[in-house]
This record gives sequence, C-alpha cells and structure tokens, in this order.
Amino acid sequence: MSGSVTGNIFTVSTWGESHGKALGVVVDGCPAGLPLEESDIQEMLDRRKPGQSKFTTARKEGDEVQILSGVFEGKTTGTPISMLVWNKDQRSKDYGQIAYSYRPGHADFTFEQKYGFRDYRGGGRSSGRETVGRVAAGAVAIKILKELGIEIYAYAKSIGPISIDYTRFDKNEISNNKMYMPDAEAAGKAEEYLHQKIQEQDSSGGVIECVIKNMPVGVGNTVFDKLDANLAKAIMSIGAVKGFEIGDGFAAAESVGSVNNDSFYINEEGNISKKTNHAGGILGGMSDGSDIIFRAAVKPTPSISREQQTVTNRGEEINMVIHGRHDPIIVPRAVVVVESMAAITIVDLLFSGMSARMDSVKKIYEKTQQ
Amino acid sequence: MSGSVTGNIFTVSTWGESHGKALGVVVDGCPAGLPLEESDIQEMLDRRKPGQSKFTTARKEGDEVQILSGVFEGKTTGTPISMLVWNKDQRSKDYGQIAYSYRPGHADFTFEQKYGFRDYRGGGRSSGRETVGRVAAGAVAIKILKELGIEIYAYAKSIGPISIDYTRFDKNEISNNKMYMPDAEAAGKAEEYLHQKIQEQDSSGGVIECVIKNMPVGVGNTVFDKLDANLAKAIMSIGAVKGFEIGDGFAAAESVGSVNNDSFYINEEGNISKKTNHAGGILGGMSDGSDIIFRAAVKPTPSISREQQTVTNRGEEINMVIHGRHDPIIVPRAVVVVESMAAITIVDLLFSGMSARMDSVKKIYEKTQQ
Amino acid sequence: MSGSVTGNIFTVSTWGESHGKALGVVVDGCPAGLPLEESDIQEMLDRRKPGQSKFTTARKEGDEVQILSGVFEGKTTGTPISMLVWNKDQRSKDYGQIAYSYRPGHADFTFEQKYGFRDYRGGGRSSGRETVGRVAAGAVAIKILKELGIEIYAYAKSIGPISIDYTRFDKNEISNNKMYMPDAEAAGKAEEYLHQKIQEQDSSGGVIECVIKNMPVGVGNTVFDKLDANLAKAIMSIGAVKGFEIGDGFAAAESVGSVNNDSFYINEEGNISKKTNHAGGILGGMSDGSDIIFRAAVKPTPSISREQQTVTNRGEEINMVIHGRHDPIIVPRAVVVVESMAAITIVDLLFSGMSARMDSVKKIYEKTQQ
Amino acid sequence: MSGSVTGNIFTVSTWGESHGKALGVVVDGCPAGLPLEESDIQEMLDRRKPGQSKFTTARKEGDEVQILSGVFEGKTTGTPISMLVWNKDQRSKDYGQIAYSYRPGHADFTFEQKYGFRDYRGGGRSSGRETVGRVAAGAVAIKILKELGIEIYAYAKSIGPISIDYTRFDKNEISNNKMYMPDAEAAGKAEEYLHQKIQEQDSSGGVIECVIKNMPVGVGNTVFDKLDANLAKAIMSIGAVKGFEIGDGFAAAESVGSVNNDSFYINEEGNISKKTNHAGGILGGMSDGSDIIFRAAVKPTPSISREQQTVTNRGEEINMVIHGRHDPIIVPRAVVVVESMAAITIVDLLFSGMSARMDSVKKIYEKTQQ
Repeated sequence: MSGSVTGNIFTVSTWGESHGKALGVVVDGCPAGLPLEESDIQEMLDRRKPGQSKFTTARKEGDEVQILSGVFEGKTTGTPISMLVWNKDQRSKDYGQIAYSYRPGHADFTFEQKYGFRDYRGGGRSSGRETVGRVAAGAVAIKILKELGIEIYAYAKSIGPISIDYTRFDKNEISNNKMYMPDAEAAGKAEEYLHQKIQEQDSSGGVIECVIKNMPVGVGNTVFDKLDANLAKAIMSIGAVKGFEIGDGFAAAESVGSVNNDSFYINEEGNISKKTNHAGGILGGMSDGSDIIFRAAVKPTPSISREQQTVTNRGEEINMVIHGRHDPIIVPRAVVVVESMAAITIVDLLFSGMSARMDSVKKIYEKTQQ
Repeated sequence: MSGSVTGNIFTVSTWGESHGKALGVVVDGCPAGLPLEESDIQEMLDRRKPGQSKFTTARKEGDEVQILSGVFEGKTTGTPISMLVWNKDQRSKDYGQIAYSYRPGHADFTFEQKYGFRDYRGGGRSSGRETVGRVAAGAVAIKILKELGIEIYAYAKSIGPISIDYTRFDKNEISNNKMYMPDAEAAGKAEEYLHQKIQEQDSSGGVIECVIKNMPVGVGNTVFDKLDANLAKAIMSIGAVKGFEIGDGFAAAESVGSVNNDSFYINEEGNISKKTNHAGGILGGMSDGSDIIFRAAVKPTPSISREQQTVTNRGEEINMVIHGRHDPIIVPRAVVVVESMAAITIVDLLFSGMSARMDSVKKIYEKTQQ
Repeated sequence: MSGSVTGNIFTVSTWGESHGKALGVVVDGCPAGLPLEESDIQEMLDRRKPGQSKFTTARKEGDEVQILSGVFEGKTTGTPISMLVWNKDQRSKDYGQIAYSYRPGHADFTFEQKYGFRDYRGGGRSSGRETVGRVAAGAVAIKILKELGIEIYAYAKSIGPISIDYTRFDKNEISNNKMYMPDAEAAGKAEEYLHQKIQEQDSSGGVIECVIKNMPVGVGNTVFDKLDANLAKAIMSIGAVKGFEIGDGFAAAESVGSVNNDSFYINEEGNISKKTNHAGGILGGMSDGSDIIFRAAVKPTPSISREQQTVTNRGEEINMVIHGRHDPIIVPRAVVVVESMAAITIVDLLFSGMSARMDSVKKIYEKTQQ
Repeated sequence: MSGSVTGNIFTVSTWGESHGKALGVVVDGCPAGLPLEESDIQEMLDRRKPGQSKFTTARKEGDEVQILSGVFEGKTTGTPISMLVWNKDQRSKDYGQIAYSYRPGHADFTFEQKYGFRDYRGGGRSSGRETVGRVAAGAVAIKILKELGIEIYAYAKSIGPISIDYTRFDKNEISNNKMYMPDAEAAGKAEEYLHQKIQEQDSSGGVIECVIKNMPVGVGNTVFDKLDANLAKAIMSIGAVKGFEIGDGFAAAESVGSVNNDSFYINEEGNISKKTNHAGGILGGMSDGSDIIFRAAVKPTPSISREQQTVTNRGEEINMVIHGRHDPIIVPRAVVVVESMAAITIVDLLFSGMSARMDSVKKIYEKTQQ
C-alpha cells in the first residue's frame, strides 16, 4: 500500500531514506497564485535541523531545499510542487550489529518482517529524517493558511517531568530556548533534566501542545472525517507520538457535563462565542471558531547509548550498543513537524469543504471562471 | 466533502439521521466466501441498544437489521453489503427551543454554520444514533478478523473517577455488568457514582480500553498510514471521544528510553517476542505481534437536565433546558463502537497491505485465479 | 477492492443485485440547500424502466424510489442521501443451466473465477439492473448542474446500421420515440431493424451521443484527472459499453492539424470562443466553454434467444438456450445512464476544482462561513 | 485538486514542467523485493526520447534518469521510489506571442482561465514532456507485470489514412521502424505520408493499438472500477488521445449478438477458453484470460508551422506562427506512454484485488508474515 501519500485534494507524497541520495516531497493541489519561494520552505526546515545544540544530533545536515516545479515567476501555478533536499553524508560504512539486529523501540523488526528485508542505514524510511518531506509540505500549507489569516504554533508543554507554568506563558520565548518552551524557567529546568539523562545514557519523552487561531467555523465533517479525527491521524503518524488529545482530552473523562459543556454567549463584537473552551475548538467534528488546542505525547528517544538486550534476524539473543551521538529528546525537533502536519490536515479539509453549500458552489462557478 | 465514507479497500459508507426514516451502511470490499447472516450483525447492534438499564436511554429502539444485498446462500459474494435499520419513532413533535437554539457541547452550532441549516430532530446526523451504521459494518469486519484468528475486545477502564483494578481483571465480567467493566467491584462503584450524577442532573465521562490479540506482524505502514495513526483517526471520529493513546500513551512522555524500550527476546516457542509492551503492539506504525492496547477518553454526555446558558440562531442569549431522559454516561454504549471502528481500520490495512512483497503478489496471482 | 464506490468529493456508493431484496445508492458530498424530492429521482428512474415497449424487457419493475436520509424540509442537508428501490419479483425459481453455465458475452465466467462463486439469479450484481443506483445518484447530480445552468442530454445516434441524420436533428423528438433518437425517420427505421433482429432471435448494438451545454471554462485537470479521461472511465464503466470518443474522436486520427485545430476568435458577446469544435469542448483535459460532445459504443445485448455454445463450471461443453424475453437492444435504456454518469463525473470535478485558485479559496472562507 | 496523482494502492505522483528545472515521479506502493535499476527505467525513457528521426522533435533531451529512493542493494524496499530527470535546456528566451496568446488545439486558454495565469514556457505542465514521469513509473509497473508473466506491447495501427495490414503483422518489426508499426510496408508508406505533411506545414493523427497477454482471470471490478473503464481513463489521460475502444469497440455497435458473443469452449489444455475475442479480453469489467486488445485515437499534433488564427489573453484576434521544429505526428512517441499507462492501471487493479476472496486473505496472513 502507498503509505507515504496523504490528502484528498491537497495531496502530499513524501519519499526518501535517511542515508539515500535525497529526500523530498511532491505537493499536488496547491492553489495557483500563492507567492512561494525556497526561503519559505528553508525557514521551516531549519527549525528541524539538528546540530543546533548539544541536545540535538551533531551530524551536519545542511538540508538546503530546492523547488523543482510548480512555481513560475514567484507564484504557484496550480501544478505539483516538487521539493528536494540532498543527503550529504551517504558514504557507506560498517553498520555492524544494526544491519542484522533489531533495535528496541525501533521499526527494524516490523519493517523487516513486513517487507522481507530493510535498508538498515540509519533507519532508512523509518528514520526521523523522513519528516523533511512533511516539513517542506507543511511550509506550503502554512503559507496558504496565513493568506486566510489562520495561525498555527506549537511548543514543548513538558519534557519528562518538567512542565511549563501557564502563568509564565510567553509565546515569544518559544524560539528563544532550545527546548521550544514558552516558559524560560521551565526550559532551564528541562535542560538540566536532559543533561542528567545524557549522563545516565538515557533519554526523555515529553508533550507538544499546538494552538490554531482564527479558524473559520465549520471546517471538518460530521462523521468519519471529523477535524479532530484527521488531526489525530496526522499527529499520530509522526514517529514516536503515542498519544493525542484535544481540548481537555483525557481530563474530560474525569469531568462532568455541567463543567465540560462550553456555554455559548454573544461576545462584545456581537458574535456567537463560547465562555470556556473545554472542547478545544471543535464541536461535532467541525471547528467552532475558538482556538483549536491539542497535545501530542512523544515517547523517549529509543536510541540510547546504554547496552540493551535484543535479538538478531537470525534468531539469536544479543546485547547491543548503538554507537554515535543520540538526541536525548525528540520533542524540540518535532515541534515544527507537528505544526506542519496540522497545517497539511487543515488545508486539505478546507479545500474539501468548499462545496458544503449550494450557494458556495454558485459563488465560484458563476463568477470566477469565465 | 463526503465525510461519511471511510476505507481504501474495505469501504464503509454510513447514512441516516436520528429521526429520519432509517439508518444504514454500505460495506464494499468484503471478500467473497465469508459466512454472514443477520444474526451476526444483530448481536453487535444489540450491544449498543439503549433501554437496557436506567443508565441508558429509555427509548425503545428495536433496531432490527436487514441485509439487503451482497450475501447469497449464506455467504458474502464480494459485492456491496447493504444493511438497514428502520427508525420506529419518527412522529413529528415540537422540538421547542432545540429547533433554533444551540445546545452546549453539541454540533448544533457548527453544523448550522457550515451547512446553512440543520435537521434539528434529535441531533440529526450528529446524533449518537449515527453509530448504527458503524456497528453493522464493524460486525462484518469482526467476522473477517475472526477467520484470521484475530480477536478484539473493549471495555470501560474508568467511569468518572472510578477505575478498574487490573488485579481483579476478569474478561468474562465485561458483559455481566451494565458498565461493561472487567471488574465487578469497580462496576458497582461506578453505578453508584452515576446514580449520584443523575441526582445532580449531571453526567460523567470515562475511558474505554481496547485490546487486539493475535495480530500478524507488519500490518500498517511506515509513514502516513501507520496502524496507530489510522486507529487514532477511527476512534477520534466517534462522537464524544476527546483523546487517544496507544500502549503507555501519555505516560510514555514522562518515561525514559531505558524503561520505555521493549527488549526483544526469543520466547519458548522459538519466536521473536518482546519482554514488555510499553509500545502497545505497534513499532514504526506496524503491528509487532504483541497485543495492541489503546485507550479512548470519552467526554461526559453533553445533554444534561440542568438548565444551561446558550444562544439561539437569531443571536439571543437564553437559558435552555433539554427535556427527556438522557444517558448520564456514553461509555458503556460506545464500547461496541470502539471495537467496530478498530476492526474496520484493521481490515482495511490488512487488505491494503497484501501487496507489500513481490512474493505475496506471486502467491495470489500464480495460483488462486486460474 | 471496493469497485462500487466512485468520486472524490461527490461520492456515489451503489449496491444491490438483480434479484436481491432491493437496490440502492448512497450519495455523500451533496451540498446543503439543494431542493430535492423523490419525484426528481423517480422521473429519471422511469426513463430506464422496462416494459415501455416491445423492445424493452416485459418484466414490470415498478421501481418506486424512497429517499431515506439527507433531505429535511425539502432540501438536502449536506449529509448522505440514501435512496432505495425494492425488488418486487424475488420468488425463487429454477434457474436451470444459468446456475452452473457461463452465458457468452456475460460476466458469469469472470465473476465466478474471481470470487469463487456467484449469485446466478438474473446476473446478480453484473445485471443491467445495477444501474438503478447510478441513475438515482445521477438525478441528484443533474439537479446540482441545473442550478449552475449546465444542461446534459443524450440520445441514440445509431442503432445497428441505422444512424440519425443531423439535418433532421430535433431535440424534442428524443423522448417522442422508443429509440430515444432525435430523428423520427431514423427511429422508424431502427424499430424495423429491431423487429427483424427479434425475428432472427438476435440483438443489435448502437451508439449513444451526449451533449453538455454551458460548462464553465476550466473544469478538469491537467494530467491524470482530465475531464475527458474521467468521462471515459464513467461511461466505459456502464455495462456493454465498448468504446468512448470525444469531439471528432477516432475520426481525428485520420485528420490533419490544420483542420483539427479549432481557431479561437472573439464572438459577438465579446468572449473568447472557438470557430469549430473538433475538440468536443475539452482542451488539455479542461472544459473550454464549448459544448462537450462524446459518444459511447454499446455492444448488442448478449442475451439472445438463439441456441449458443458454451461451457459449464464443471468444464463440460454444452448448448445453451437463455429463456425469457430479452431486449434486442440496450441503447434506449442506457441513454439515461449515460446522462447520469456524465453528471456524476462533472459534479465531482466541479467540486474538486473549487480550490484551484487562491482567490477562490479566499472568497469562500472570508465570507461564507462565520 | 490534485490531478497529478493516480492509483489506489500503486500510487503514481508525477511532477514537472516542460522548461522547469526537472521532471519526475514518485511511485508509492511498489512491493518489496523487485529487482530494479536505473537501466530498467532508462530503456523505456529512451523509447520516448525525441531526436531519433526527422519525424520527432530535434531538441536533444538526454533524459538521464536517477533513482533517488526506494531501492537498496538492487531491490525495491517497499518504500516510495522517487525518479528524476533534469531538464537541460532551461535558458530563458523570448517566447514571443506564445506568452500571451492561446495556441489552437493546446491547453493555453483553458489552463489560464482555470488558474489565472500559466507557465507559458513550452506548454509548462501541459506539454507532452509531462509523460516523462508516466513512463518512468510505467517502467516499474512493467517490471512487476513481467514477474507475473504478463506482457504488454503497443504499436502504431495507423498513421493518418495508412493502416497496417494484419496479414503482414510482425511483432519484431515494431522497433525496426520509426513509425513503431508491426508492418514494414505500411511504415514505409506512413513515412512518405508524413514527409508530405511536413511539406504542407501540417501534421497527422493516428491510432495506437495495445495488446496485453497472459492476464490472470478476474482482474478488474464489477461496477465502477471495471478494468476497461480504468484503462479508458488512463489512456484518455494521455494528451492528444481523443478516443478509446476495447475489442471490437465501435464496430460492436454495428454488430449483432450472435456474432459479437464469444462462445466458451474447452481448449486443448483442458481450460475454459473463448473461440473468438470480440470482447477484447474483458467480460463484465474483469479480465477473461484472453488477450486484452484496445486502441487509442491520437489527434494530429496541434503545433504546426502554418499560420493560424487565434486570440491573445487581452482579447485581440491575431494571426500566430509557432516557430521551431514540430513533430508532424505524436503517435510513435506515445506508444511507450500507452504501454506505461496500461501497466500502471493493471498493477493497481491487481493489487487492489488481492482481497477478493477470503481464502486469498488467509493465504497471505496465515503464512507470509511471521
């Protein structure tokens, strides 16, 4: 099955292995007339680039993106946008145990069982590096949303046991610290915690929170293609994500209706609004105009320096040590991936929903074309 | 957009409103040769039927299913299976405030904004009754999985603050109590808790847990169509579900790699297995042969007897009382819906993955078909 | 695979066997606010109903359609529209040879080989009766197109060797004769020809032509989803259709560029128009604003009274006689099916194309919703 | 809409403009374990390369393909295969009238109306050069079919008024002449005919015929996704194709049932076979085991040297001369594109149909995986 293609109208098709020649993505269904240049993409890619701090992998990736199609004279043409990043470091080396053993917490075992063999170099297609294509496509989606006034941002809500304190929430702080936390104090503590994990040859998980502002009402569908359902799929498809919740999420399970229901009222501008936002901006699968707020639980980096028990593909039990430098935490680099997947999802639902009403259909076909 | 169709190869198309003439589903892509009769479907539908206890809606639904196509001489033929349930109670009545007001926690507001108007009778398509089609399709999917030796079961893990105790876990107990809890003691406490909520004109949320046993290794895909991502979408598409987690889920975010990684070993039968199952049966988006375990957070029933503040579609603020009997809890009736959506998802991924290897393709086309 | 579902945004899911309990269709993705009632559907279904003349099957079908969902107070709600027709004549009878033999020109052999067995009653799902669902869905699509001022009509261009004469073309004549020919004289000759075929226990083929007027410019896509490609698939998916051509079609293969190219000019209203229409209204896969004109070649009815040679599913060669009354021609009843499939295809492409430009996207999301 | 992606399980996503940086394709859903190298692709691409004769464009394209992902140690891994060809000649030049005028018979007008502006360099995405991606993907599909013993070949059946004579049919001759005709004598006459067209500053159409041998029985679906319907869409999506027919095609419309029906019999190997093949290898939308034979009508090259009348995008009527060398015929270069699209279509249907029977599903999941 073609598991690297997503989207109904705004289609994203990613490709590329960690240590192959290149990685990239084809975005089909981007409307014509969107101003787009390589720097729009590069800016997003740079946010997922390692080598920025001791908490992210040392390998210099570079990751200079090239737009190969779909843009003419600075604007999208409505045709597929192909974007590519060359892998710089492809020299073959001895992968040792990794070539024939199954790293705990990785896709080595399942991939090999499913396909019969695997590209063992750096995790192949199951590497975190696979997200290059997602982020490049996400940059296009975010550009579209900006044109509609919709804003998306994500940040680390917690790293291991260290959570942000919302009384200190400062959106501008997010890009100031290597933790991508909107709370400088929590970020400091998180750095200390990660130092400790490195010392222990161990790694940490964390939670990413994402906020989407200025959504039009009614994006998403009533039954299977609910906005929250599609966001859940998109976010859970990011490697290492083990949980997703919207609004109060799991806390709602312990709440009562009289608290959890958000009352409607007429706000100062005379519009229908909600007094609270336990729902996280979605009612019955459709955006309700409030902020959309969701969270993703990210597991600890599975690659740790510590010796681990595992088996080989010949059925032998061994002790394995994964050499090289490893990120002790996935969260900071995944923040931009979460934004990207959220944007891709929303753009596809926006476009798929344009024919929801007969009067919208008439608006487009009576005037725009001819 | 067509938000009531799901699946790539095993396609499920549900239809019907709460107080319309009927509800139903068309399942396309069911393999030929599966023994199937109405009682297979009825058994599942009966599990979601209200009127079983004071904790579930009093309205007699009946819900007798008819299979209208796709089955011949007791076996599926490979053509679409159409299943239908007539709505018995469609007499028109005065819906009062509901017709023009937005119930808090419901889809009334978003639906009307998106589509311009809405079928206000009992929630229309946004009613929980919409799950009739999901469960009928789920019954077909579960029948397919049984043929492959795969078993799915779900239960209430918690209702409000009352959680099951795993030391008392008894699978047979699940269908013995109205809470669908595998722990009779917890079920008793949960019933008491719900009595109290009814007294308070309030409602409760809860958590459903689902277990899938005997999965083949390798079901699901590496990137966008990960098994856990597709399960997340399917489960989050059920009304009232606000969170999804697999394996340790959100707890993994607070864990460390040395604990969260599941070591591989060779088990007594000589097969590769895992010593622990923090991953919940999925690695890199593909089933790893362990039990798949996931949880869904269900919000409290939004319809409560208590007076609530809201607005009308003419922009007036009002106090609203929703008359009639309301379930104080959604969880017990949603258990079978969770099983159904999980089964539908897995069947579609199983079928979509049959061409993963060239040797599988040869196996089918060299021998099965002439 | 789910071969009975079509469409990306306007999704049509048909079901039902020739001699099963009922046949029907679920249409998902119809915009809200379209006036729709059962008579809109019935009118179209009546055009495919047999028993109208000696050239169409004698069996009384009735085919009264019921709309079971998706319409409230006379308008579509944006939710799935389920439509159903009960089969009246389902009494079991002795199907004789048909149960175990393969009728020449029918799907009996291929269906049984693919699925292992088959519903042999009246052809099951491979019966022409399968088109009930297509026509019901087509009626909805045609209603949508009418709202946009787009008109579709089809007719018999030829029956066997008898072709219409365009100098006598009269659109109003189409529904006046049983041949659905826009030329009374040709219709008369065609009736005579069919009489002769009935005498000879034989059957005839023919060609259906379809015209679509007032198309907006730009419907369809540049590469795989060209409007003509999608029309070709839709029309070729109708049983018995063996060829499809647009504009000059196969004649263009013998033409030269200087003739086949349609010159653009400025028409009397000051709009860009074409002097000729060899292209049939589509350039580069997109509608060009001229009339779309295409043709479908329909093979002779495979069920003939004459004795034929064939084999049984036990591998024996036999002589077979197919009892009962048979239409000597498929063309007249397929005219409405061609219109239906064309309408379904165009609606889906119209809806899928609404996000072609950034300014269209803004037009919908800046004003319609909220 | 994303009109450059096709396929359900075997997904092909092409990209690239005629005079952009590069063209390419991503193939997702290729089974693991298929031997594949760049020469497999190059061989096919070379067949569509111009500059081979005076009848094909003089521009040196080169078109060296690179495989960027999805292949490891000479075999496909089951992950997306990205293939790319750089455009050598991208220097900007003065496109003169083409930049603002609509060439007759081209997509210039429709593209600009739909998207608001267009990449006018060499036709952009509507150029015949877009087929580079199709052919690269087709090479992968053909490799898969070969593993299953299925063979596809196409050839020119006619060029203008010159048709091949089947009594002289010689498959080996196809690649011997620049016309791709299986009849050397007809090829000679066709060359003469094209010389004449060049003299007349004109162009010619033609017909391509394609044969598929050794198909398993039962590929394709009963209703919308009939094998012939999907082939029709795939072939009609190739630029310049105006008609499609299978088996006797349009001739069947003039035939009678007693002739057009193919009688079944038991052949010398004891298998069920057909005495004739009027159906072209497909019954009821499914392959019947006979040769599949279809034809595509190709219009004359719209770019001709002769002065033509047209309009500009400012609404002025002008006389236009398209400079440069033009192919007087599209047919020979399109032969390999027809083979490619046929192969892509069949592979997708083969993979989508693997779950047609419960026993096939068991065969894969009981043994292959773990």
